[in-house]
Amino acid sequence: MATTPTFDESLAWLRLLRAPGIGAATLRALVERHGSAQTAVERAPGDESLPAAARAALRTPDRAAEGADRHWLEQPDHHLLTCSGQDYPALLRDIPSAPAALLVHGDPAQLWSPQIAIVGARSASASGLANARSFARAFARAGNVVTSGLAEGIDGAAHGAALDAGGATIAVLGTGPDVIYPRQHRELAARIAAHGALVSEFPPGTEGRPEHFPRRNRIISGLSLGTLVIEAGLNSGSLITARLAAEQGREVFALPGSIHSPLARGCHRLIRDGAWLVETADEVLEQLRGVGARLADHLRERLGQDEKSAPVRRSGTTADPDYARLLAALDQTPAALDELAERSGLGAAALSSMLLVLELDGVVISASGGRYALAP
Amino acid sequence: MATTPTFDESLAWLRLLRAPGIGAATLRALVERHGSAQTAVERAPGDESLPAAARAALRTPDRAAEGADRHWLEQPDHHLLTCSGQDYPALLRDIPSAPAALLVHGDPAQLWSPQIAIVGARSASASGLANARSFARAFARAGNVVTSGLAEGIDGAAHGAALDAGGATIAVLGTGPDVIYPRQHRELAARIAAHGALVSEFPPGTEGRPEHFPRRNRIISGLSLGTLVIEAGLNSGSLITARLAAEQGREVFALPGSIHSPLARGCHRLIRDGAWLVETADEVLEQLRGVGARLADHLRERLGQDEKSAPVRRSGTTADPDYARLLAALDQTPAALDELAERSGLGAAALSSMLLVLELDGVVISASGGRYALAP
Repeated sequence: MATTPTFDESLAWLRLLRAPGIGAATLRALVERHGSAQTAVERAPGDESLPAAARAALRTPDRAAEGADRHWLEQPDHHLLTCSGQDYPALLRDIPSAPAALLVHGDPAQLWSPQIAIVGARSASASGLANARSFARAFARAGNVVTSGLAEGIDGAAHGAALDAGGATIAVLGTGPDVIYPRQHRELAARIAAHGALVSEFPPGTEGRPEHFPRRNRIISGLSLGTLVIEAGLNSGSLITARLAAEQGREVFALPGSIHSPLARGCHRLIRDGAWLVETADEVLEQLRGVGARLADHLRERLGQDEKSAPVRRSGTTADPDYARLLAALDQTPAALDELAERSGLGAAALSSMLLVLELDGVVISASGGRYALAP
Repeated sequence: MATTPTFDESLAWLRLLRAPGIGAATLRALVERHGSAQTAVERAPGDESLPAAARAALRTPDRAAEGADRHWLEQPDHHLLTCSGQDYPALLRDIPSAPAALLVHGDPAQLWSPQIAIVGARSASASGLANARSFARAFARAGNVVTSGLAEGIDGAAHGAALDAGGATIAVLGTGPDVIYPRQHRELAARIAAHGALVSEFPPGTEGRPEHFPRRNRIISGLSLGTLVIEAGLNSGSLITARLAAEQGREVFALPGSIHSPLARGCHRLIRDGAWLVETADEVLEQLRGVGARLADHLRERLGQDEKSAPVRRSGTTADPDYARLLAALDQTPAALDELAERSGLGAAALSSMLLVLELDGVVISASGGRYALAP
């Protein structure tokens, strides 16, 4: 396993990340084939296996982007972790469609701490916010890092309470690591960078786009031993995070609530679908004890050996009957989510996360207007 | 299958029910062996297989009790249904430890209507009471009888709302059919008798005793296609009803609530143990559609044939590992519930209902001070 990349190697990785049409799997294979990102960038213009747009972009350097990347990499506490590097967190490496690289502002060692994700509605209720704070405090006091998405509502409450309890917290961004969204969380983000880490798979300067946030969710769940959903409506992005967590083989926990609260509906759906109904933080901690042991094994492995063959990628998608129905509903003509829901009989929340997984696997491409098609 | 018993036969049944030490199974076997309750009473004093106390009681008539029984039987809308009679409700006959006879004040035909049990805390919250009323109304409007236990709180709210919606409701009592407990439900009980039925397995004049209420619960769940628990603390009798329902192979439904409400804890435990988490009455009705078809089959059977062999009694208790642990923890020295909980590792709520089932099966006897021992 490679050691931490040099400055120039990191710069070359960022250039590859910015090249259009190169997915995580392609990028990984490319760097592996050429032995380094720098060599991959040099040889890319002549590499017929790459999309024309990627070759063109790698042929002509974008000085402004390179300046931004240099600037970002030069600052203290800014790190690039590549999937082949030894610092890349083991639990995240395990997931299908793991990001090729992570940009970290803060302490990258925190990514190896046992993490519990707390996610939920942006428009949370007062009691939802209080619950997020109380569970985050308890997780932090028990020595866990609280991981979330820096969004308004539940996310922000969880990050803040973990810090207030003297713990660490990790925020995974749907923007570049230097773009803080929402703006009112700038101060919170600074505290997180100082006592934890801001993590992104997007190059510096990348603005938030709607499609970034579901992608971001797979990293939140993938970094974590388990994901706790505090409050979620039926259309909440938190349900995507929870579904991804389950698909990643991680534990999913949900708080029940009143049958009259729309923000409890999503949690109730998760519980019906097999998530653990929890009333206390101790129940979550108890349940995760075994999973934590797995992380400890990974950690021992990492400390005990420097060389390791690339892990086998796992993807259970093809064997899953829901995925089979979705694949049968897709063809090469882009179709809207509603249309796919009707064709496949699957719900919109489920569809969104499944399409994301398939997109990250390179099976599906997303077209304009939120439409999806089979990759050519 | 026998037709409705005559007045004198009913009187003889009540006398057998009053005899000490004759359980439901013994009573059924006795009547079957002698061809009628009247013959069984006549021959009982010389029947060496009966406990001495029972023989003594059947030798010397208790004039006061007989007067009470006569008086009760003579009144209009008072009926005795015996387990060998064709009017005895089919779903209840199916359960282990079905009562040997039911005393009904009201319309016995309602016992054959599809019933849904609504149970819950006596000290319910305002929102729990509102939920009980709203689910009861919806069940009644969909043509179901709402069955409950006439207790304060959830039970009373469910009975009342079913009646207000123009539906029928059945109250199963832990007292004789002429003893209304709690007293403030006298008016409600009169309405129930007029638009449904009051049901009891205890002879007229029987006062409520603590041990009657868990017994009563098995009849509530046994009459019903499914049981919905609205609100329940961790020590609620409703959890016993729910456990009995599950052991009877019936559906159990529970409403989730706030993690901060002690009255949601019991429901959450049920959901974790496999009860359906429900948010709406429609979900319950949808789930029970298939079970309702089973009742319809029974009804067709009853209408189509007058003679039928006695149904085979089902009892899954011996194969169940929890029961095996409980039986291993019991011996012939009476032990308190706490002691049994410690010996078996089982929770108090589970133990209570399991001990009840074993007691009704004649395997366990209850001694003074809430202690239990294996039957000699």
